[in-house]
Amino acid sequence: MLAGMFVVLEGGEGAGKSTLAAALHERLRADGREVVLVREPGGTLAGEQVRLLLHERLAPWAEVFAFLTARAQLIAEVIRPALARGATVLCDRFEASTFAYQGYGRGMPVEALQTANRLATGGTSPDVTIYLDIDPEIGLARKQGETEAVATGLENLEFHRRVRRGYHVLGQGSLPGKWLTLDATRPPADILADAAAWIGLPWQPPG
Amino acid sequence: MLAGMFVVLEGGEGAGKSTLAAALHERLRADGREVVLVREPGGTLAGEQVRLLLHERLAPWAEVFAFLTARAQLIAEVIRPALARGATVLCDRFEASTFAYQGYGRGMPVEALQTANRLATGGTSPDVTIYLDIDPEIGLARKQGETEAVATGLENLEFHRRVRRGYHVLGQGSLPGKWLTLDATRPPADILADAAAWIGLPWQPPG
Repeated sequence: MLAGMFVVLEGGEGAGKSTLAAALHERLRADGREVVLVREPGGTLAGEQVRLLLHERLAPWAEVFAFLTARAQLIAEVIRPALARGATVLCDRFEASTFAYQGYGRGMPVEALQTANRLATGGTSPDVTIYLDIDPEIGLARKQGETEAVATGLENLEFHRRVRRGYHVLGQGSLPGKWLTLDATRPPADILADAAAWIGLPWQPPG
Repeated sequence: MLAGMFVVLEGGEGAGKSTLAAALHERLRADGREVVLVREPGGTLAGEQVRLLLHERLAPWAEVFAFLTARAQLIAEVIRPALARGATVLCDRFEASTFAYQGYGRGMPVEALQTANRLATGGTSPDVTIYLDIDPEIGLARKQGETEAVATGLENLEFHRRVRRGYHVLGQGSLPGKWLTLDATRPPADILADAAAWIGLPWQPPG
């Protein structure tokens, strides 16, 4: 039995996941909880090596397996131990990214991705997924100037539209755990307030 | 339709795979064939990065997915194109290593490994697997002094006995393609002669 809470942040490029992650981290700590903030791929030494590997031009399944290598390691080394001791885990991207980007975005078979993902996670699924929804045209414009070299950031607009439609399908219930969709164009303080309420943090006036 | 021949060499530590691979490479070239000699993990830039990643202490499924990353990339980048142009591919370790080492050796579920492996290979299977069979006590003694830092080389004798039993099960028909078991304690010239005949090379007097 894992006593902690596993919270995942999802969304397209420029949706504001990192900003929300940092703000939630702060609020959770202020509430006296132990928080572990991680990002995928990464969060472990092996995961950071996988991040470098993703700079190579990889075959579709090689890319998926690279992500799953990082995920399996992150779960074993960080997420499960943290949940076991009652911590809140905040994870920037998790399995929904695989289904949205590789599945709906690249057109790989979603069922096969789910099968492979289950082997990587061993059933450790998010309790809550907070999805920041944004029109890719707005999101990508926000990102302009940033140097996001991860492979998934280099695709075209149509790809990101397919990814967004994928997230919408996933949000309709094909994943375990609760799913909250938030409009990412709202003011950050409002987004934070909704996300915080959703994961059971006490209300706090914005600002 | 892939016109070439896909030959895989398998075996425990110290069985003499590399020696046989080099000798077969030579014989195939002397026969006028185009030969592509690769090793797993490796054979591509991404695969060599995976080889480095395997130096980390990885969770069981993270290790499997790291191997499958290299395999998927090797197939897409090297093996399928080579087979398509009619070349002979000689591969030092392939899917049987996953089943023997991670499955039978480490006790991971072989069916789940087969499922994941099918996603990585997309059905590109060896036409011939040549398995060099050796008692691990003899094989490991042969290896003494060599610095084989890949994780699979650092296990104990009982582990290698389980791996060998796994190869014996695999050789009884659970893998596609033809399987040839050769006694690795025989003289190298005899082993080469049998392996060469098995893959259709013309007879050549030893020496």
